[in-house]
Amino acid sequence: MKLSRRGAVEPFHAMDVLAEATKRRAAGRPVISMAVGQPVHPAPEAAREAARRALDVGRIGYTDALGLLSLRRAISDFYRRHHGVSVDPGRIAITTGSSAGFNLAFLALFDAGDRVAIARPGYPAYRNILAALGIETVEIEVNAENGFTLTPAALEAAAAAHGRIDGVLLASPANPTGTVTGRANLSALSAYCRDNGIAFISDEIYHGLTFVGEEATALEFGEEAVIINSFSKYYCMTGWRIGWMVLPEALVRPVERIAQSLYISAPELSQIAAEAALGAEAELNVYRDAYRENRDFLVKRLPEIGFAVASPMDGAFYAYVDVSRFTNDSMAFARRMLAETDVAATPGADFDPQDGHHTMRFSYAGSFEEMSEAVDRLARWLA
Amino acid sequence: MKLSRRGAVEPFHAMDVLAEATKRRAAGRPVISMAVGQPVHPAPEAAREAARRALDVGRIGYTDALGLLSLRRAISDFYRRHHGVSVDPGRIAITTGSSAGFNLAFLALFDAGDRVAIARPGYPAYRNILAALGIETVEIEVNAENGFTLTPAALEAAAAAHGRIDGVLLASPANPTGTVTGRANLSALSAYCRDNGIAFISDEIYHGLTFVGEEATALEFGEEAVIINSFSKYYCMTGWRIGWMVLPEALVRPVERIAQSLYISAPELSQIAAEAALGAEAELNVYRDAYRENRDFLVKRLPEIGFAVASPMDGAFYAYVDVSRFTNDSMAFARRMLAETDVAATPGADFDPQDGHHTMRFSYAGSFEEMSEAVDRLARWLA
Repeated sequence: MKLSRRGAVEPFHAMDVLAEATKRRAAGRPVISMAVGQPVHPAPEAAREAARRALDVGRIGYTDALGLLSLRRAISDFYRRHHGVSVDPGRIAITTGSSAGFNLAFLALFDAGDRVAIARPGYPAYRNILAALGIETVEIEVNAENGFTLTPAALEAAAAAHGRIDGVLLASPANPTGTVTGRANLSALSAYCRDNGIAFISDEIYHGLTFVGEEATALEFGEEAVIINSFSKYYCMTGWRIGWMVLPEALVRPVERIAQSLYISAPELSQIAAEAALGAEAELNVYRDAYRENRDFLVKRLPEIGFAVASPMDGAFYAYVDVSRFTNDSMAFARRMLAETDVAATPGADFDPQDGHHTMRFSYAGSFEEMSEAVDRLARWLA
Repeated sequence: MKLSRRGAVEPFHAMDVLAEATKRRAAGRPVISMAVGQPVHPAPEAAREAARRALDVGRIGYTDALGLLSLRRAISDFYRRHHGVSVDPGRIAITTGSSAGFNLAFLALFDAGDRVAIARPGYPAYRNILAALGIETVEIEVNAENGFTLTPAALEAAAAAHGRIDGVLLASPANPTGTVTGRANLSALSAYCRDNGIAFISDEIYHGLTFVGEEATALEFGEEAVIINSFSKYYCMTGWRIGWMVLPEALVRPVERIAQSLYISAPELSQIAAEAALGAEAELNVYRDAYRENRDFLVKRLPEIGFAVASPMDGAFYAYVDVSRFTNDSMAFARRMLAETDVAATPGADFDPQDGHHTMRFSYAGSFEEMSEAVDRLARWLA
């Protein structure tokens, strides 16, 4: 059987670890999963109640491809309330998770052979979706010297080395580094992209989970950026597959057309629940504060057991650690760790094909008890 | 702002009509929507009850990229029960609707520049997704002469005219023609593809809705075909965005890898509900029998008001009609019809870029009362 070349994308190892952890849990093992970035908490009660009501009322159907107008309006209100930014609901597209947002943005902005700059380490699906679509990825190393973020200078250097850059994709807070890119840097990056005709995609899916520094949206600096956001993280709705984009006016119709054929619409029940979730901040901020406790605990304890923290850990809910004291093959290390301690974490190769063989990512979106128990198990195992 | 060339795919006009119908309904108009292929009925009670229980229990999270094992097993049982075919659950992938199934199949099987044959008229998203991925579409006209389906002879002719065909995609029952491709034809097509190293994708999303003829799955003829199915139509779960694929063994891992990055997983609540829906045939067959009544009514009434039925109408829930007595611009006709009668239907251009200017598709998945009222309105309007 002939397979496509583009089907040979890398696996998302976190998902492979999840599959393995699922199997072990089904077999009765006391698995603690720190592999996948998903909150231990359920969706807010108001969201679940809205879903229950919708189930009682009747048909869950296709919505318009860009989503329910009431949800698009509620998101517009969110921007006014949280960021003091006015966004026409007509520029908001509801998506089947940020996964659909990335795919739609890439399809609407780039053709095969175009070049998009991303941070390394970074979210592996960026690279894999781009590869599947025939778009070239230009990986720019982020490190202590450049503040673990992308800068105009780094983009200039990358363009000089690789040729014209057509797009830039930056996450803040970032996965896996936890970097929070502040207002000044984000503004400079936006301006650089605008001045150079480069499409700027701002991944804001970890907004609401900033523990150190300031949380800015690229919308503050103009209407050219493509914003991608999601209800998965702060709103605890991973498995609902629901997110949104804010689009420059010129991109609305292309995204709508592509979405009509590639997605038809996002799940309606999730759209209804998401609208209710926007009003559940009191409940969600309790969870956020719990992540902060987990973070403060891990920032202290991980280095003590030999896992040096390798990046800022200022936002999102990941600890990206250096495990070079123990291994030069983080993939094998992750497998052995899961087999011998029932603690699941993600090998760095997911995030950094070049230097990820000696790093690991731990998600701290679980309960404090789990974090504490995991560290105890790992301490015993590493000793 | 630079837009991609591939973003210039055609709109799915049915979705544009839906958006317009949604607006009119919101404005208080008595809209009857026959534009989009979605049942008027809610998901089966057992499915909604399973969803309610899951909402009470707690977190709705990511599942493995290929889906919940229990659902994959239930689908395997379905094939044993309905088709007497044994399918390893490991070959079943749960997808975010058939939309994701098509995208995953295309990505895993074809590279840019490959050529895939489809029927004309046919489901427009095939063409649009293929175009977005840089894959060439070879449209083969289906008509009374070839039984409104694809045949080895037609594929031979297309290959002679266009060069090597890399894939064939056939729906049975088909949208919009309603063609049911019988066992003998499907077997011949499977064999032809196998013998010629052509990937065969069998779109079976309208299974369960065959009113005339025999309903066969391509799985009966070997394990090489890629089967795409969905809970949207027979199971009345459009807005849940949930479907499945059955994959040749060699394709399982590529599809899993791509799905990990492009979709992460299908919505978990929908997966849970879908499993319950598989056991709800008693309820669903009542709906199916109602579609049959609608069909019998429309087969008789549409020609009487001047809309000649242009294809078999043996399965699915569409009437594809010739409106050349009234217009040579079905797009404008659909808009005027909606504006003047509040009956929404889809212009043929969606399904047939060449000859669709004088055809329209009416979905008959609504209630009998709606069908009857729609025909009355149209009769008055056309007179």
